[in-house]
Amino acid sequence: MSAYTIGVVGALGVVGGTMLEVLEQRKFPIRELIPLDARENEGKEISFMGEKLRVREAKKGAFAEMDAALFAVGAEASLALAPAAVSEGCVVVDNSSAFRMEKDVPLVVPEVNPGAVLRHKGIIANPNCSTVIALLPIKPLHDYAGVKRVIASTYQAVSGAGIAGLRELEAQTRDVLEGRAPEPKAFAHRIAFNLIPHIDFFEDNAYTHEEMKLVRESRKILDAPELMVNCTCVRVPVYCSHSESITIETERELTPEKARELLAKAPGVRVADDPARLLYPMPVDTSGQDLVFVGRIRKDISTDRPSLSFWCCGDQLRKGAATNAVQILEILAASSARSTSTAR
Amino acid sequence: MSAYTIGVVGALGVVGGTMLEVLEQRKFPIRELIPLDARENEGKEISFMGEKLRVREAKKGAFAEMDAALFAVGAEASLALAPAAVSEGCVVVDNSSAFRMEKDVPLVVPEVNPGAVLRHKGIIANPNCSTVIALLPIKPLHDYAGVKRVIASTYQAVSGAGIAGLRELEAQTRDVLEGRAPEPKAFAHRIAFNLIPHIDFFEDNAYTHEEMKLVRESRKILDAPELMVNCTCVRVPVYCSHSESITIETERELTPEKARELLAKAPGVRVADDPARLLYPMPVDTSGQDLVFVGRIRKDISTDRPSLSFWCCGDQLRKGAATNAVQILEILAASSARSTSTAR
Repeated sequence: MSAYTIGVVGALGVVGGTMLEVLEQRKFPIRELIPLDARENEGKEISFMGEKLRVREAKKGAFAEMDAALFAVGAEASLALAPAAVSEGCVVVDNSSAFRMEKDVPLVVPEVNPGAVLRHKGIIANPNCSTVIALLPIKPLHDYAGVKRVIASTYQAVSGAGIAGLRELEAQTRDVLEGRAPEPKAFAHRIAFNLIPHIDFFEDNAYTHEEMKLVRESRKILDAPELMVNCTCVRVPVYCSHSESITIETERELTPEKARELLAKAPGVRVADDPARLLYPMPVDTSGQDLVFVGRIRKDISTDRPSLSFWCCGDQLRKGAATNAVQILEILAASSARSTSTAR
Repeated sequence: MSAYTIGVVGALGVVGGTMLEVLEQRKFPIRELIPLDARENEGKEISFMGEKLRVREAKKGAFAEMDAALFAVGAEASLALAPAAVSEGCVVVDNSSAFRMEKDVPLVVPEVNPGAVLRHKGIIANPNCSTVIALLPIKPLHDYAGVKRVIASTYQAVSGAGIAGLRELEAQTRDVLEGRAPEPKAFAHRIAFNLIPHIDFFEDNAYTHEEMKLVRESRKILDAPELMVNCTCVRVPVYCSHSESITIETERELTPEKARELLAKAPGVRVADDPARLLYPMPVDTSGQDLVFVGRIRKDISTDRPSLSFWCCGDQLRKGAATNAVQILEILAASSARSTSTAR
C-alpha cells in the first residue's frame, strides 16, 4: 500500500490539530506529515504519531513535495495559498469557504457525494460544519422522499470560532461566576451564559453568510438546485458539537418510523431517539467522535403536507471539519491506489 | 383609589420572588401583601416595600382575607389549592399549567387578549413563559396578515426550572471548569456547556408537553383554533431569558418592513433589528426588564408563500410569568375600580 506526504496548513489551530488527531486515529498511510502555519509560528513543535514535528511556514514553494494538503485556515489565507499549492502539484482539501461555490471545485461530504471528489482540478472543498451535520441525516431522507424544503435553527458551539472561541467562553464564564464584566473579543458580544444570533457577516437579504452557506452548499452537495432552505444560525455557550433543530418538507410521505429505519442504515449517522430512556442527541454525548446523532424524530404537526422534524448533533471539529477532510483524502488515496494497480 | 390584599403563593420561589419585585416596581395598590409558601418555609421572612414580611403556610383557609392571589407553584400544588382559594372568595391568577386549557379559565396575555380576564370564574391562568414570549410579536402580525402556521425552536434559560435550575447551572459550570464531573439533579442531564432537547414530559406524539403548550395555548389565546404550530423546545446554559427562532406562514403578504412597522407599534415589544450595528435580541440584553425584543426579521426564503422569520428574546421570569400575572391583576383592579365608581 502506498503512503503519502501530507501537509496540514493551520496545524496549530483547533481544526488543524483535530486533523492531525484524525489522520492518526484513522491510520491514514502517511510517509511524511508536514505541519504548516503562519510565519510567526514557524519552528514551534506539534506531536504526531509519537514524534515531535517542527512547524514550517505556510507559503508559496512549501508544497512541492506533498501529495496533498489539508487546509484549516481562513478563507483569505486559503485564497492566497491554495492555488499556489495546486500549481506545485499538491492536491488541496480546503476547509474554508473560499472555493466551496466555485464551479470546478467539488464540495464533498463523503457519505453524500463521494463521486464528486475525483472530478477535482486540484482543490476539493470541505463544506461548512453545520452543512455537514445537517446533510448526513437529510441525505437518506432525501433519497427516499425527496426533500423540498428545509427549515433549520442551529445551536453552534464556540469552537466553530477556533481556539479563540474556546478560550473566550472559558474566560468569560469565569468572569461572570466571579462577578467581573466579561470582555468580548472573539465574538461580537458576550457569549458566556448568552446566545448570539449572528455568525459570519450579514448578507444583503438579512441572512448571515453562515445561514446562506447551508442554503447554497446543500443545493450543490445534494445536486438539488431547487431545494429551498431557511436557516437561523445561533452561537451558544457550548464548547464543542453543533446542534440543529430541523424541519423538512418532502415530496412523498415519510413517517417517523420509516425515517428512523432509513437513518439507522445511513452511513455516518446514529439514531439516538428513545425519549422514554431520556435518549436524544446532546453536545456532551457527540463530542470527540465522528457520527451525527439524530433524535426527536417526529411528524411535523404544523402541516398536512408530508413534513418531518428532528434534532441532530455532531462534533463540528471532527465530522464537521477534520474527519470529513480526512475522509476525502481517503477517497483520493483509494483512487490513486486503484489507478496505480490498473497501470501495473 | 382602592388598595388590595394580595397573596403570593410560592413567595420564596424564583417566579414568586419576581412577582414581589414586579408588584413593587409597578406600584400595584397593595393594602396588605401576604407571602405564602410550603409548610416547611412558614415563618421565613421576605422583603416587600422595605418591610420584612413573615411567610405563612399556603393551605386551605389561608385565602379568606385576600382579594386575589398570584400562584407561582407547580401544577399539582395549584390543583390542590386554587379551587379552595376561590371558594374563600379570592381571585386566583395561576402561573402553573394546571388550569390553562380549562374551558372556564381565561388564559391571558394582557397585550393580546385582555378582555378575557373579566370572563373569569375565579381562576385566570398565566400562559407558559415561551408562549407569552412568542405571542407578543405574533399577535400584531396575526392581526395584519393572518398567521396560519408557526414553526418555532426555543432556546430556554435554566431559571425556567426555578431556583434549582439556576443553582444547577452555576454549580455544574464550576464543576466543569474545575475538572469535576457535574451531577444532574434539576435536569435530566448535565446542562453546563450542553443543550437538552427535552423540557417537561414526552406526550404520545413524541412532542414534549412544553412543546405542546405552545400549540394549545397559542390557539386559545389568539382564539385561532385552526392555527398550526410546530415547536422544538431546548434547554440552554443561559441563566435568564428565553429566546425563540420563529417562522410564520401568513394568509396575506407580510414584508419584513411592514412587520417591523407593526412590531414597533405593538405593546410589550421592542424591535431590536439593526445587524449593521450588531443589534439583535440576546438574553443578556433582555433580562431584568419586561419587553420582548424582536429582531432578525426577514423573508423566509424557503417558500414562495407569504412567510417570515424572526428571532425574539424575553425575560421569562418577568414578562413570561411575574409581570404577565401582575398585569392581569391590574386589569382586575381597573375593572373593580370602574364597577365601584359606577355603583356610586
